[in-house]
Amino acid sequence: MKDIDPEEMTRRIWVYDKIREIVLRYGFQLVEPSTIENLETLEAKVGPAIRNEIYWFKDKGERSLGLRFDLTVGLTRMIASRTDLPEPIKYAAIGGNWRYDEPQFGRYRYFTQWDVEIFGSASPSADAEVICVGADILENVGLKNFRIKISNRRLTDAYLNELGLSPGEKLDQTLRVIDKIRKITREELEREFLAIDVKPETVEKILDFVSINGSPRDVLQKLEGLRFKEDKARIAITELKLLADSLEASGRIGNCTYDLSIVRGIDYYDGIVFEGYDKDEEVGAVFGGGRYDGLCKIFGKRDLPATGVAGGVERLLISLEKAGLFPKTKPVAKVFIATIQEDAIIEATKLAKQLRQRNIATAIDLKGRSLSKQLEYVNANGIPYMIVLGRRELESRVVKIKNMATRVEVETGLDEVATHLERLE
Amino acid sequence: MKDIDPEEMTRRIWVYDKIREIVLRYGFQLVEPSTIENLETLEAKVGPAIRNEIYWFKDKGERSLGLRFDLTVGLTRMIASRTDLPEPIKYAAIGGNWRYDEPQFGRYRYFTQWDVEIFGSASPSADAEVICVGADILENVGLKNFRIKISNRRLTDAYLNELGLSPGEKLDQTLRVIDKIRKITREELEREFLAIDVKPETVEKILDFVSINGSPRDVLQKLEGLRFKEDKARIAITELKLLADSLEASGRIGNCTYDLSIVRGIDYYDGIVFEGYDKDEEVGAVFGGGRYDGLCKIFGKRDLPATGVAGGVERLLISLEKAGLFPKTKPVAKVFIATIQEDAIIEATKLAKQLRQRNIATAIDLKGRSLSKQLEYVNANGIPYMIVLGRRELESRVVKIKNMATRVEVETGLDEVATHLERLE
Repeated sequence: MKDIDPEEMTRRIWVYDKIREIVLRYGFQLVEPSTIENLETLEAKVGPAIRNEIYWFKDKGERSLGLRFDLTVGLTRMIASRTDLPEPIKYAAIGGNWRYDEPQFGRYRYFTQWDVEIFGSASPSADAEVICVGADILENVGLKNFRIKISNRRLTDAYLNELGLSPGEKLDQTLRVIDKIRKITREELEREFLAIDVKPETVEKILDFVSINGSPRDVLQKLEGLRFKEDKARIAITELKLLADSLEASGRIGNCTYDLSIVRGIDYYDGIVFEGYDKDEEVGAVFGGGRYDGLCKIFGKRDLPATGVAGGVERLLISLEKAGLFPKTKPVAKVFIATIQEDAIIEATKLAKQLRQRNIATAIDLKGRSLSKQLEYVNANGIPYMIVLGRRELESRVVKIKNMATRVEVETGLDEVATHLERLE
Repeated sequence: MKDIDPEEMTRRIWVYDKIREIVLRYGFQLVEPSTIENLETLEAKVGPAIRNEIYWFKDKGERSLGLRFDLTVGLTRMIASRTDLPEPIKYAAIGGNWRYDEPQFGRYRYFTQWDVEIFGSASPSADAEVICVGADILENVGLKNFRIKISNRRLTDAYLNELGLSPGEKLDQTLRVIDKIRKITREELEREFLAIDVKPETVEKILDFVSINGSPRDVLQKLEGLRFKEDKARIAITELKLLADSLEASGRIGNCTYDLSIVRGIDYYDGIVFEGYDKDEEVGAVFGGGRYDGLCKIFGKRDLPATGVAGGVERLLISLEKAGLFPKTKPVAKVFIATIQEDAIIEATKLAKQLRQRNIATAIDLKGRSLSKQLEYVNANGIPYMIVLGRRELESRVVKIKNMATRVEVETGLDEVATHLERLE
């Protein structure tokens, strides 16, 4: 159960607007996939094991349904059966998702993600584009010293294959252990490798390989030095080279590190993968993504290369809070019209209507309270201006606009209040 | 399963912004209650019968949970335990809800509502305020000839009491039949009354009473003529009189009809109730609401008077579509940078970066296609401007911006493209 209170909601709307601004700049279309999916759609990529991590249930027609756990699966299902859309299809979404797991720091059972996907391009320039969208979003909310760590699953797979780990359960387990590298110590890592029966000399080689990281150009040079036998490895290195060229052209290469420890769990990724970190890495990755050329095919319809990026809004809110980057929260209203006797409420309502028509946030007394109680309400809500309507004001049709912080009052005719307030900060 | 496609999403974002603009003007705070509630919270107002109409399930800890079916219950739960908030608490939310019933026209299993609630005021000026919010929202999206039909459940109850129907199952059944008045014929209505054992002479009187409608002042005059014995009726009429005064002060009385057939089902309403209709009533009520002073108490915490209004976004979208009120959908990008040979993609990326920094929506070729294929893509997406980067352009650093509709080309230096595009419509 997670309610969003007024302060958080204001921040969220601000963040959503910042995200939308960026995705529209890149020519993405905003959509939203269904919140409820057939269970088999949700199981498509990882199998029935997903049931342990999601909310699912049978409906009255005995259909098994589940709440979406991310936006990528739904977006992919949306386009998998469409052959009428010009490619690449560039979709973006912001929406809530549900995971039935133990809540972690900055991770809830109900959480919101932004998600940006390109379907129909196998080119690293598409991977570069989604990485740049991620970077631009962080920049647009005010974060500066972020870093994007990039690798290529195709390269990791090729290297592990050369070490004798062929595709299958053991390779998947190995990737899952590698994925923990930023969370556990080297000793723990070695123990986990031994537990899944990876030979010590292989562990050594894996750990050497995944410890390669540095600027994209440096890492590419290092990779040229390694002698891969597999064609797959050469293709992967070419992809990383084209990606670097594209990131350089976008002026983003300075924010990027090639880091071969990035594998993004097992998931559906099968090419370039990446994670974005705020300067303070404590909160975990603020976005992550990569290429998943194999997923569309699983929905049985067609074979469409795809790449994308998604980020958790809750973690982003934590990063922004820590960095003090939120704009100051506005008070609920700019002005409160207080009323002394009962019949003044009608004049207050008329004045409120005028002000609201001019887009000035206005509140009136809805409780028939004493003036001192109304004043308490104004102060409790931090409303910056107040007007009192009493017998004298109603007769003279002249009122005072009081600045609650400075206590300064400005006198004005009833019909000039809007014009005055518009000028005031 | 309901996916939101790009066209609908653009319209939704436009509608959400229009709604938010109004609620902020009135000094409401935007919030969002949890999507998942304890089943007992959802059952609080109507009892276990609600289970037939909602999605509910047990979680792994055997807790019974359900997806929210409206926003009012969650908003009420949110504030019911808060004694620290200055009253009235004015909350607004826009969010998705789930109902497991047969989808009707403009009503889906997953649907979005906007919802505006005032907690802590028993005054009809609060009812007037939420009615005005509803009216202002309709006006702000461009609807003009809407009508708000208003009644008072307290008055209906008093009248039915006087006819001998005391509070209980039969009174509830009677209200449920009255609620169908706009959906079934008079004969069907009479049959339904007889089926629940209401005497023919009572049916006659009920039908006379609920057929009273007209301008608020006219109906009030008519009500003065009826001789009620119950105090409750006199209180109810005074409320309707104060409401009319307030609606008049807000300049909204012209949009309002007092219509005693409005009862809003049984639900949780216990005072002023209303429904908003677009000129074309076919789509059903575009919003509805009223007073539910008894609901907060059900959550056991405290006794807070409350009134609110909620509207279905899907029905609003249908009304707006019919009235042709949506702004023209913008193309996905303002400009497409086409590339002739492969190395031009780097220059295209650089130029795209420049344009996006100036907030110009820009797309580049991510598929390495032939120029004619790129042109097809531009036309299929209705992108209004195109720039072609070939050997000559890269050498001279002079490009042509082509208006795809008029075929007119403007020549400009590579660094001037953004400035030119900013000036173009």
